[in-house]
Amino acid sequence: MFEYRLIAQCPETGARAGELITPHGVIETPVFMPVGTQATVKAMTPPELEEIGAQIILGNTYHLYMRPGADIVEEAGGLHKFMQWHHPILTDSGGFQVFSLSELRKITDEGVEFRSHLDGSKHFMRPEDSMDIQQKLGSDIAMAFDECVVWPTTEEYSRAAMERTISWAGRCKEHHSRVDQALFGIVQGSMFEAQRIECIKRLEDISFPGYGIGGLSVGESHEDMYRILDALCPEMPVNKPRYLMGVGHPANLIEGVARGIDMFDCVLPTRNGRNGGVLTSFGKLNLKNRGFARDFTPIDPSCGCYTCRNFTRAYIRHLYTAGEILAARLCSWHNLYFLVNLMKDARRAIIEGRYPSFRRDFFSKYNEGPIRP
Amino acid sequence: MFEYRLIAQCPETGARAGELITPHGVIETPVFMPVGTQATVKAMTPPELEEIGAQIILGNTYHLYMRPGADIVEEAGGLHKFMQWHHPILTDSGGFQVFSLSELRKITDEGVEFRSHLDGSKHFMRPEDSMDIQQKLGSDIAMAFDECVVWPTTEEYSRAAMERTISWAGRCKEHHSRVDQALFGIVQGSMFEAQRIECIKRLEDISFPGYGIGGLSVGESHEDMYRILDALCPEMPVNKPRYLMGVGHPANLIEGVARGIDMFDCVLPTRNGRNGGVLTSFGKLNLKNRGFARDFTPIDPSCGCYTCRNFTRAYIRHLYTAGEILAARLCSWHNLYFLVNLMKDARRAIIEGRYPSFRRDFFSKYNEGPIRP
Repeated sequence: MFEYRLIAQCPETGARAGELITPHGVIETPVFMPVGTQATVKAMTPPELEEIGAQIILGNTYHLYMRPGADIVEEAGGLHKFMQWHHPILTDSGGFQVFSLSELRKITDEGVEFRSHLDGSKHFMRPEDSMDIQQKLGSDIAMAFDECVVWPTTEEYSRAAMERTISWAGRCKEHHSRVDQALFGIVQGSMFEAQRIECIKRLEDISFPGYGIGGLSVGESHEDMYRILDALCPEMPVNKPRYLMGVGHPANLIEGVARGIDMFDCVLPTRNGRNGGVLTSFGKLNLKNRGFARDFTPIDPSCGCYTCRNFTRAYIRHLYTAGEILAARLCSWHNLYFLVNLMKDARRAIIEGRYPSFRRDFFSKYNEGPIRP
Repeated sequence: MFEYRLIAQCPETGARAGELITPHGVIETPVFMPVGTQATVKAMTPPELEEIGAQIILGNTYHLYMRPGADIVEEAGGLHKFMQWHHPILTDSGGFQVFSLSELRKITDEGVEFRSHLDGSKHFMRPEDSMDIQQKLGSDIAMAFDECVVWPTTEEYSRAAMERTISWAGRCKEHHSRVDQALFGIVQGSMFEAQRIECIKRLEDISFPGYGIGGLSVGESHEDMYRILDALCPEMPVNKPRYLMGVGHPANLIEGVARGIDMFDCVLPTRNGRNGGVLTSFGKLNLKNRGFARDFTPIDPSCGCYTCRNFTRAYIRHLYTAGEILAARLCSWHNLYFLVNLMKDARRAIIEGRYPSFRRDFFSKYNEGPIRP
């Protein structure tokens, strides 16, 4: 019911193309996964996501546990049916949001006590609870409950969190029972290569069908991110998918793929889209700028998305200025199309044995200074 | 380029079916026209409006004059091209918004001085300015600049506003030159039957290809609205379209059609939709209510819209509670579908000679107490 097939590898970089078989369909990797935090990819309908070419989306366990509650989603027939997305879904463990969103959290080896960011109510989440919730949601891929440490941190604190993450991963696997749901482990270890390598080896001893890489894009430099990927990826099993969690800058995707990453997710395309920020093949634009008021060209003339095929920068700028929902829709649509298809193009380049030139071409056009490696 | 053809008349009521030929296509009447105030029907794309069956939409002259400005729309190639709606568009005159939205307005026979509701800047709009703006926007149907009086008012004030409206209508016709744009006059006269009848006769002396009925749904009872329509409609020319401006309650549409109205517009389906209010064949619901949290049925089981074919009340309630844009989209979509198709069904009933039973059936199901006649 769940399998990863390696299709092609780049002879010069770590880039690889594969297929992930899940109960709701096959995912071609590398893949960008739009984030549907609260049972909706913000501002988008499921048919629009299909039109864009999205193959798998995310749901957030913490948010859905808080609202509407896992029981209601289960009664609705699971998350796929509730939100009418009939392709694969990955749910995170809730760990990252418990640490980043909730208030007054207290971490023990047993689990995490925290207060809801919505109403201040007190909750306790153990690895077993995260499994119960994700099994009720019924995602195709569940993630183990982990402790995500932000940067900067100390080697000692990182180790403690890593030990807890490994212990919790074991409890997750022990508790997890749904056969139509794959459970991925999560590699932690912050910016410490040795911890990262130790973590993946000990998770492999427990054995999961795929691995997330957590604790990156949490405040470190892009150089640090790439250094960790350079050290970690060669130690990861070749026959299992690798998911770089929460990473979504175009340059990070291209460089992540070059290091052997298969899956990415990020809220930036929709969050920035709602604020006028759009991605293009030549860098980022903010359509709120006055300079676009009379610009009757598309966001990106080389883009084939619905937005770029139909609307001008001047029109979208007007929509933002006027506070219109359609602005958020059109830019979310474009940004998701951009990232989803960047990964489709990358996959084609890997299969056709030209990933190095694809990567060079991308950076010769794309201008983002600081995050360009 | 512009023509109204009467297709069928109900032998028992004033209801009629017709066709309006415009430069951007034929409109089958009676028709509900979605409102696209700021060059977008809020939360909707043009293809979605087509899917719903919308034939013509509105643009608001006041709003577009303020933002982005008529010159930018003209440079973009006109409103149709700017917003990518390739079917008919009607623009209002700006008069209603000048009176209802702007600040510190001063009405003279020459025109209206007012301050922008956006930045407080001072403006002066004469009938000629309204024509210039609407000609730049390039709508298929422009409306004469009128003074809309809200209820309650005095017979004297109503007469003064009516005289001004007639005088301005003449100046509008004098100034209007665009041959691919029809200019409609607007009947005022508040709740005074004699004024209404005088107004339509004097506007007919000037001669317009169609007439709006303004100053209804502005604070009066539904009985008063129907009383005025009962008195006015028989005095209106049979061979020209009649547009009841700003009216959109389902019961008002059914009763307006029964009195001979051809065209309606209203912001309620999108405005209420953004706040959880939905129309159904059995009355109105507010999906924010807690009672819908576990209701896994569609908004209206007899509705064929995208929302009802795919999503449950429980899901949409969750989206509202969570502040998701998709909630506004799904309910705007449903409400517009409901009104657009209510008028399509009414048209079919008129053509098939069964409007009286269609009207009875509607009210036997639809429960809205006070506005039911």
